[in-house]
Amino acid sequence: MLGRLNHVAIAVPDLAAASAVYRDTLGARVTEPQALPEHGVTVVFIDVGNTKIELLEPLGEGSPIAAFLAKSPSGGMHHVCYEVDDILAARDHLKASGARVLGDGNPKTGAHGKPVLFLHPKDFQGTLVELEQA
Amino acid sequence: MLGRLNHVAIAVPDLAAASAVYRDTLGARVTEPQALPEHGVTVVFIDVGNTKIELLEPLGEGSPIAAFLAKSPSGGMHHVCYEVDDILAARDHLKASGARVLGDGNPKTGAHGKPVLFLHPKDFQGTLVELEQA
Repeated sequence: MLGRLNHVAIAVPDLAAASAVYRDTLGARVTEPQALPEHGVTVVFIDVGNTKIELLEPLGEGSPIAAFLAKSPSGGMHHVCYEVDDILAARDHLKASGARVLGDGNPKTGAHGKPVLFLHPKDFQGTLVELEQA
Repeated sequence: MLGRLNHVAIAVPDLAAASAVYRDTLGARVTEPQALPEHGVTVVFIDVGNTKIELLEPLGEGSPIAAFLAKSPSGGMHHVCYEVDDILAARDHLKASGARVLGDGNPKTGAHGKPVLFLHPKDFQGTLVELEQA
Protein backbone atom coordinates (compact mmCIF):
# COMPACT_ATOMS: atom_id res chain seq x y z
CA MET A 1 0.00 0.00 0.00
CA LEU A 2 2.65 2.48 1.09
CA GLY A 3 4.08 4.22 -1.98
CA ARG A 4 7.03 6.55 -2.39
CA LEU A 5 7.89 9.26 0.11
CA ASN A 6 6.43 12.42 -1.37
CA HIS A 7 8.00 14.75 1.21
CA VAL A 8 9.27 15.30 4.72
CA ALA A 9 7.71 18.38 6.32
CA ILE A 10 9.67 20.54 8.76
CA ALA A 11 7.90 23.23 10.78
CA VAL A 12 9.96 26.41 11.11
CA PRO A 13 9.36 29.67 12.97
CA ASP A 14 10.91 31.86 10.24
CA LEU A 15 10.56 30.64 6.67
CA ALA A 16 12.94 33.23 5.19
CA ALA A 17 15.70 32.33 7.65
CA ALA A 18 15.14 28.59 7.16
CA SER A 19 15.14 28.98 3.36
CA ALA A 20 18.46 30.81 3.59
CA VAL A 21 19.98 27.93 5.60
CA TYR A 22 18.90 25.34 3.03
CA ARG A 23 19.95 27.52 0.10
CA ASP A 24 23.20 29.01 1.37
CA THR A 25 24.50 26.58 3.99
CA LEU A 26 23.24 23.31 2.48
CA GLY A 27 23.44 24.41 -1.17
CA ALA A 28 19.92 23.28 -2.08
CA ARG A 29 17.35 24.76 -4.47
CA VAL A 30 14.44 26.31 -2.58
CA THR A 31 11.18 27.38 -4.27
CA GLU A 32 9.48 30.74 -3.70
CA PRO A 33 7.16 30.87 -0.66
CA GLN A 34 3.59 29.82 -1.36
CA ALA A 35 0.82 30.96 1.02
CA LEU A 36 -1.85 28.33 1.66
CA PRO A 37 -4.38 30.20 3.81
CA GLU A 38 -6.84 27.29 3.74
CA HIS A 39 -4.14 25.13 5.41
CA GLY A 40 -2.86 27.86 7.74
CA VAL A 41 0.71 27.65 6.46
CA THR A 42 3.18 29.23 4.07
CA VAL A 43 5.41 26.64 2.39
CA VAL A 44 8.55 26.29 0.33
CA PHE A 45 9.74 23.06 -1.25
CA ILE A 46 13.29 21.81 -1.59
CA ASP A 47 13.86 19.29 -4.35
CA VAL A 48 16.60 16.87 -3.25
CA GLY A 49 16.34 14.71 -6.37
CA ASN A 50 14.44 11.67 -5.15
CA THR A 51 11.92 13.46 -2.89
CA LYS A 52 11.14 16.87 -1.42
CA ILE A 53 11.57 18.67 1.88
CA GLU A 54 8.65 20.97 2.73
CA LEU A 55 9.31 23.85 5.11
CA LEU A 56 6.16 25.09 6.87
CA GLU A 57 5.65 28.45 8.59
CA PRO A 58 2.40 29.29 10.42
CA LEU A 59 0.00 31.56 8.52
CA GLY A 60 -2.86 33.39 10.23
CA GLU A 61 -4.75 32.55 13.39
CA GLY A 62 -5.23 28.93 14.42
CA SER A 63 -2.47 27.51 12.20
CA PRO A 64 -2.32 23.70 12.58
CA ILE A 65 1.43 23.97 13.27
CA ALA A 66 1.15 26.69 15.95
CA ALA A 67 0.95 24.19 18.83
CA PHE A 68 3.92 22.25 17.46
CA LEU A 69 6.06 25.41 17.34
CA ALA A 70 4.88 26.48 20.79
CA LYS A 71 6.34 23.19 22.07
CA SER A 72 9.43 23.28 19.78
CA PRO A 73 10.09 26.99 19.17
CA SER A 74 13.15 26.46 16.99
CA GLY A 75 11.20 24.07 14.72
CA GLY A 76 11.44 20.38 13.94
CA MET A 77 10.30 17.50 11.78
CA HIS A 78 6.52 17.71 11.60
CA HIS A 79 5.28 14.90 9.32
CA VAL A 80 6.11 12.52 6.51
CA CYS A 81 3.92 12.18 3.41
CA TYR A 82 3.62 8.94 1.46
CA GLU A 83 1.90 8.46 -1.87
CA VAL A 84 -0.83 5.85 -2.23
CA ASP A 85 -2.52 4.67 -5.41
CA ASP A 86 -6.05 4.81 -4.01
CA ILE A 87 -6.52 7.05 -0.98
CA LEU A 88 -10.04 5.84 -0.19
CA ALA A 89 -9.02 2.18 -0.30
CA ALA A 90 -5.98 3.04 1.86
CA ARG A 91 -8.19 4.86 4.36
CA ASP A 92 -10.64 1.98 4.59
CA HIS A 93 -7.81 -0.55 5.06
CA LEU A 94 -6.22 1.61 7.77
CA LYS A 95 -9.48 2.12 9.62
CA ALA A 96 -10.16 -1.62 9.50
CA SER A 97 -6.66 -2.13 10.99
CA GLY A 98 -7.58 0.14 13.89
CA ALA A 99 -5.57 3.20 12.81
CA ARG A 100 -7.18 6.58 13.38
CA VAL A 101 -7.69 8.99 10.49
CA LEU A 102 -7.68 12.64 11.60
CA GLY A 103 -10.50 15.10 10.95
CA ASP A 104 -13.77 13.83 9.54
CA GLY A 105 -12.05 11.00 7.68
CA ASN A 106 -12.61 12.53 4.25
CA PRO A 107 -9.64 13.54 2.10
CA LYS A 108 -8.91 17.27 1.75
CA THR A 109 -7.04 18.96 -1.06
CA GLY A 110 -3.33 19.21 -0.15
CA ALA A 111 -0.52 21.54 -1.18
CA HIS A 112 -0.14 19.80 -4.56
CA GLY A 113 -3.87 19.96 -5.39
CA LYS A 114 -4.34 16.25 -4.68
CA PRO A 115 -6.47 14.50 -2.02
CA VAL A 116 -4.68 14.01 1.29
CA LEU A 117 -5.40 12.48 4.70
CA PHE A 118 -3.53 12.58 7.99
CA LEU A 119 -3.17 9.60 10.35
CA HIS A 120 -2.95 9.82 14.12
CA PRO A 121 0.71 9.94 15.28
CA LYS A 122 -0.06 7.74 18.28
CA ASP A 123 -0.82 4.87 15.89
CA PHE A 124 2.54 5.31 14.07
CA GLN A 125 5.25 5.55 16.75
CA GLY A 126 4.79 9.26 17.34
CA THR A 127 5.04 10.12 13.63
CA LEU A 128 2.33 12.20 11.97
CA VAL A 129 1.72 10.47 8.62
CA GLU A 130 0.13 12.16 5.61
CA LEU A 131 -1.14 10.09 2.71
CA GLU A 132 -1.46 11.70 -0.72
CA GLN A 133 -3.25 10.30 -3.74
CA ALA A 134 -0.45 9.53 -6.25
CA MET B 1 25.87 20.14 -2.10
CA LEU B 2 22.78 18.47 -0.63
CA GLY B 3 22.15 15.21 -2.48
CA ARG B 4 19.24 12.77 -2.34
CA LEU B 5 17.46 11.86 0.85
CA ASN B 6 19.00 8.53 1.86
CA HIS B 7 16.56 7.88 4.70
CA VAL B 8 14.29 9.25 7.39
CA ALA B 9 15.03 7.72 10.80
CA ILE B 10 12.28 7.11 13.33
CA ALA B 11 13.14 6.15 16.92
CA VAL B 12 10.80 3.52 18.34
CA PRO B 13 10.54 1.89 21.77
CA ASP B 14 9.66 -1.58 20.38
CA LEU B 15 11.13 -2.52 17.02
CA ALA B 16 9.06 -5.69 16.60
CA ALA B 17 5.79 -3.83 17.24
CA ALA B 18 6.79 -0.95 14.96
CA SER B 19 7.86 -3.35 12.19
CA ALA B 20 4.45 -5.04 12.42
CA VAL B 21 2.69 -1.68 11.98
CA TYR B 22 4.69 -0.85 8.86
CA ARG B 23 4.34 -4.36 7.45
CA ASP B 24 0.74 -5.19 8.34
CA THR B 25 -1.04 -1.85 8.68
CA LEU B 26 0.89 0.14 6.06
CA GLY B 27 1.65 -2.79 3.77
CA ALA B 28 5.36 -2.05 3.43
CA ARG B 29 8.38 -4.36 3.10
CA VAL B 30 10.47 -4.35 6.27
CA THR B 31 13.97 -5.87 6.48
CA GLU B 32 15.12 -8.20 9.25
CA PRO B 33 16.45 -6.43 12.38
CA GLN B 34 20.16 -5.62 12.27
CA ALA B 35 22.01 -5.02 15.55
CA LEU B 36 24.60 -2.24 15.37
CA PRO B 37 26.23 -2.37 18.81
CA GLU B 38 28.86 0.21 17.84
CA HIS B 39 26.00 2.68 17.19
CA GLY B 40 23.88 1.58 20.16
CA VAL B 41 20.84 0.74 18.01
CA THR B 42 19.05 -2.12 16.32
CA VAL B 43 17.63 -1.09 12.93
CA VAL B 44 15.25 -2.20 10.23
CA PHE B 45 14.86 -0.50 6.86
CA ILE B 46 11.68 0.02 4.90
CA ASP B 47 12.18 0.55 1.18
CA VAL B 48 9.44 2.91 -0.07
CA GLY B 49 10.77 3.00 -3.64
CA ASN B 50 12.50 6.36 -3.81
CA THR B 51 14.09 6.35 -0.34
CA LYS B 52 14.11 4.41 2.93
CA ILE B 53 12.60 4.69 6.37
CA GLU B 54 14.94 3.52 9.14
CA LEU B 55 13.36 2.38 12.41
CA LEU B 56 15.76 2.60 15.36
CA GLU B 57 15.46 0.81 18.71
CA PRO B 58 17.96 1.41 21.54
CA LEU B 59 20.60 -1.31 21.99
CA GLY B 60 22.66 -1.63 25.15
CA GLU B 61 23.63 0.99 27.70
CA GLY B 62 24.11 4.60 26.64
CA SER B 63 22.27 4.31 23.34
CA PRO B 64 22.36 7.66 21.49
CA ILE B 65 18.55 7.49 21.11
CA ALA B 66 17.81 6.74 24.80
CA ALA B 67 17.40 10.42 25.72
CA PHE B 68 15.12 11.00 22.73
CA LEU B 69 12.84 8.13 23.77
CA ALA B 70 12.87 9.25 27.40
CA LYS B 71 11.41 12.56 26.15
CA SER B 72 9.09 10.94 23.56
CA PRO B 73 8.30 7.46 24.93
CA SER B 74 6.07 6.44 22.03
CA GLY B 75 8.81 7.34 19.53
CA GLY B 76 9.13 9.95 16.80
CA MET B 77 11.08 11.24 13.84
CA HIS B 78 14.73 11.30 14.90
CA HIS B 79 16.81 12.48 11.93
CA VAL B 80 17.04 12.83 8.17
CA CYS B 81 20.05 11.60 6.18
CA TYR B 82 21.19 13.24 2.97
CA GLU B 83 23.83 11.95 0.59
CA VAL B 84 26.77 14.16 -0.35
CA ASP B 85 29.39 13.55 -3.01
CA ASP B 86 32.33 14.52 -0.82
CA ILE B 87 31.72 14.37 2.91
CA LEU B 88 34.97 16.11 3.88
CA ALA B 89 34.33 19.00 1.46
CA ALA B 90 30.74 19.20 2.77
CA ARG B 91 31.98 19.27 6.37
CA ASP B 92 34.48 22.01 5.65
CA HIS B 93 31.88 24.11 3.81
CA LEU B 94 29.40 23.68 6.67
CA LYS B 95 31.93 24.57 9.34
CA ALA B 96 32.94 27.65 7.36
CA SER B 97 29.22 28.59 7.24
CA GLY B 98 29.08 28.41 11.04
CA ALA B 99 27.20 25.09 11.30
CA ARG B 100 28.27 22.74 14.08
CA VAL B 101 29.38 19.20 13.30
CA LEU B 102 28.72 16.77 16.17
CA GLY B 103 31.38 14.63 17.83
CA ASP B 104 35.01 15.20 16.95
CA GLY B 105 34.16 16.37 13.45
CA ASN B 106 35.54 13.27 11.78
CA PRO B 107 33.23 10.95 9.79
CA LYS B 108 32.30 7.63 11.37
CA THR B 109 31.16 4.49 9.56
CA GLY B 110 27.36 4.45 9.34
CA ALA B 111 24.75 1.72 9.03
CA HIS B 112 25.51 1.27 5.32
CA GLY B 113 29.28 0.99 5.82
CA LYS B 114 29.86 4.51 4.47
CA PRO B 115 31.32 7.60 6.20
CA VAL B 116 28.68 9.68 7.99
CA LEU B 117 28.55 12.89 10.02
CA PHE B 118 25.81 14.47 12.13
CA LEU B 119 25.04 18.20 12.23
CA HIS B 120 23.72 20.09 15.24
CA PRO B 121 19.91 20.30 15.17
CA LYS B 122 19.97 23.85 16.51
CA ASP B 123 21.63 24.97 13.28
CA PHE B 124 18.90 23.31 11.13
CA GLN B 125 15.52 24.34 12.59
CA GLY B 126 15.48 21.62 15.24
CA THR B 127 16.23 18.85 12.74
CA LEU B 128 19.11 16.45 13.35
CA VAL B 129 20.80 16.09 9.95
CA GLU B 130 23.03 13.16 8.99
CA LEU B 131 25.26 13.38 5.94
CA GLU B 132 26.41 10.19 4.23
CA GLN B 133 29.09 9.85 1.60
CA ALA B 134 27.22 8.86 -1.60
